[in-house]
Amino acid sequence: MKVKKPKTPPSDLEVVAGNGLIDRRALLGRGILIAGAAATGAGGAATAAAEPLKDAPWTTAPGAVTPVLQTPSRFEKDVVRALSNPSGTPRTQHARTPHHLLNGTITPNSLHFTILHTGIPDIDPAQHRLVIHGMVRQPKVFTLETLARYPMVTRNHFVECGGNSGPLFNNEPVQASVQQLHGLCSSAEWTGVLLSTLLDEVGVDPNAKWMQTEGADSSALDRSTPVKKGFDDAMIALYQNGERLMPGNGYPMRLLLPGWEGNMNTKFLRRIKLSDQPAMSYYETRNYSPLLPDGKAYRFYFINEVKSFITHPSFGHTLTDKGYYEISGIAFSGNGRIAKVLVSADGGKSWAQAALQEPVHPRAFTRFTMPWRWDGQPVVLTSRAWDEGGNAQPLRADFVAVRGQTKAPTNNPFPNNHYNSLTSWGIDGKGGIKHVYV
Amino acid sequence: MKVKKPKTPPSDLEVVAGNGLIDRRALLGRGILIAGAAATGAGGAATAAAEPLKDAPWTTAPGAVTPVLQTPSRFEKDVVRALSNPSGTPRTQHARTPHHLLNGTITPNSLHFTILHTGIPDIDPAQHRLVIHGMVRQPKVFTLETLARYPMVTRNHFVECGGNSGPLFNNEPVQASVQQLHGLCSSAEWTGVLLSTLLDEVGVDPNAKWMQTEGADSSALDRSTPVKKGFDDAMIALYQNGERLMPGNGYPMRLLLPGWEGNMNTKFLRRIKLSDQPAMSYYETRNYSPLLPDGKAYRFYFINEVKSFITHPSFGHTLTDKGYYEISGIAFSGNGRIAKVLVSADGGKSWAQAALQEPVHPRAFTRFTMPWRWDGQPVVLTSRAWDEGGNAQPLRADFVAVRGQTKAPTNNPFPNNHYNSLTSWGIDGKGGIKHVYV
Repeated sequence: MKVKKPKTPPSDLEVVAGNGLIDRRALLGRGILIAGAAATGAGGAATAAAEPLKDAPWTTAPGAVTPVLQTPSRFEKDVVRALSNPSGTPRTQHARTPHHLLNGTITPNSLHFTILHTGIPDIDPAQHRLVIHGMVRQPKVFTLETLARYPMVTRNHFVECGGNSGPLFNNEPVQASVQQLHGLCSSAEWTGVLLSTLLDEVGVDPNAKWMQTEGADSSALDRSTPVKKGFDDAMIALYQNGERLMPGNGYPMRLLLPGWEGNMNTKFLRRIKLSDQPAMSYYETRNYSPLLPDGKAYRFYFINEVKSFITHPSFGHTLTDKGYYEISGIAFSGNGRIAKVLVSADGGKSWAQAALQEPVHPRAFTRFTMPWRWDGQPVVLTSRAWDEGGNAQPLRADFVAVRGQTKAPTNNPFPNNHYNSLTSWGIDGKGGIKHVYV
Repeated sequence: MKVKKPKTPPSDLEVVAGNGLIDRRALLGRGILIAGAAATGAGGAATAAAEPLKDAPWTTAPGAVTPVLQTPSRFEKDVVRALSNPSGTPRTQHARTPHHLLNGTITPNSLHFTILHTGIPDIDPAQHRLVIHGMVRQPKVFTLETLARYPMVTRNHFVECGGNSGPLFNNEPVQASVQQLHGLCSSAEWTGVLLSTLLDEVGVDPNAKWMQTEGADSSALDRSTPVKKGFDDAMIALYQNGERLMPGNGYPMRLLLPGWEGNMNTKFLRRIKLSDQPAMSYYETRNYSPLLPDGKAYRFYFINEVKSFITHPSFGHTLTDKGYYEISGIAFSGNGRIAKVLVSADGGKSWAQAALQEPVHPRAFTRFTMPWRWDGQPVVLTSRAWDEGGNAQPLRADFVAVRGQTKAPTNNPFPNNHYNSLTSWGIDGKGGIKHVYV
């Protein structure tokens, strides 16, 4: 099949920033001009249908039997989570979402990231109990069955590990995919009971300021959360994208603290203890309290700050031809909705505003897209997001000045949390893609 | 564990319709009163935490190794699709979504309904081609790789088989679950290229009014669709809830005609032929052209009309105690957004307005909820939806008068399409649930 070379783009496709970023409004609502842009760039996409259709083997014989549970095509065998501990030795296991192979805003349940310190517990939901006690009027026990009778809400939210994007603290750009760099975050539709409903049920003492939440797995991970978040938007999540939680995501119930770092969203939730002070647990005084350059401990940081990264194209992809492409990526903020995302194709010298996939949910993945015509020359793609609170992703120099950077792996397993500066991709003249800093 | 009996509800919880439907606004934004309602009803939910927590086996030993793809807990083994042809004999296979066991608005990919006439094709995406030809300026062939370069959109939409809800044409209520009655519809987040982009690319002859779309599987199912829909919101879907399409849902690409009956949303899409007339294919003149009571053929009906059904509680569930429950269900319309859903607990004599899960997407599942206090007496629950076009679900008598009903199975495998009247659940004094007509 012969591939047509791309033509010169129509002159009325306004370039709005360096290296071929096209005004997204030029592509919106202009009918045939959209096609013009696409025809130009996708170029190779549309080849003249000179070749007759041949009937493929799947057209000439019956197919497979329908299963009760669908699974992906065998041709998608590489679309899996990357494991940090593939031999499954008894230590922490990270499973990272392959964002560079996905699209849209939902992470399918099979690919939602997980971190387990002592494996996945095999919890019998009929035996599981949630206790709320401590500084309350009436401590209570909830079963899964009885929780199901409370009013439920359904909301789209991301969850992100505090250690996500950790490799970007390195003073040299680590050559790795979006999955390896940013795979410890995922986004889903969660359904469950608002924690405020249950806190009202037990009657919280006005002097109680903290909630110690604890999981039922053998790591018994516990963290302290301000009660205020419990009365705000915290949820006891029972369903994930419509079905019961995945075992690795906290089955049969988990705490969801929208926009707050992953380990506080206690999985396998069995206990909430109200108190007038934080519990100062292992996981908040040791695991998640790294030292800052000034020698102070970085602790009781809760919110996953505004972040964005380009998933298409990115490390692991190759541009096969010059012409039109759509740059696409993910943005999110623990502070609320994404307000805008700017994209640069010249390493940050000039910027253009990306389109945001509607509706924009607060504290959920937002897909951004930017039309781009690649002229075949080396370029550096990067993105920068702002949230509705006016927070911007910091530039790398500003971020490193405050948070520091590292030269080599350290003995501390959690040295570098909450990286939210830019991620940049350098594309060479052959379409190869590297991770670079700008 | 002793279960507390429910107390009398607070007097300020306003009952707005017969048999205990509670004003949803009474539960919204009233802080402690939500808890009051919940405490009352969920009653058994919250038992005094007198019993000490015992460490369960999953708390005292390490758990399982993390897999690259997550699957549900073994305790969820009943949450599967129901197959119409479980032995997989060479004929049509229906796989129905278990709505009575799910929640939220997304159908997880493993549980999305499918209908395959000749099995699931094992398509190599690198070999698959989409041809657009016929009354066009320049016929073209698209590969999956080149389609990926076009601008993409992400949208939530349901897909519903024209034959969904068919059992409700029976003149006696069939005793079956929501899965068996309404399981041939599902809703997902789809990502792909708008068909209008590709139609502009090939240049459609102004005299072309129809598109014949054809799949690459061995049933080569083809249907005719007005070109207008192609320029409106039709999409070539490549991703489903973030990952590549499931094999049974059309991998590697399908036509998505938001709100139009399932079989027109051609799976395994390999061909779109522009024409000035419909193709009068087998699937539109025979399979999907049932006779109406007046002897005319019911054909070229496209839109899935406004529909709703209660999923919780429903057939297969049992109410274990009187008190507070949340009635919950699904509403959708091929005409656009759901505007309102009314719920009745007295078989349609009185109605109250349900809360709709925000944001309400056009042509997508919308979850509705209604607070309810069951007094332990027999009741009949039902729901009725309206869409933004002002269309209402017809009452059963009105529907049957036009569309007819059946006494027994006929030889015609598709006698009864597009049922969209009410679904009602009769609850007896012991909490047992039957399918009834009102």
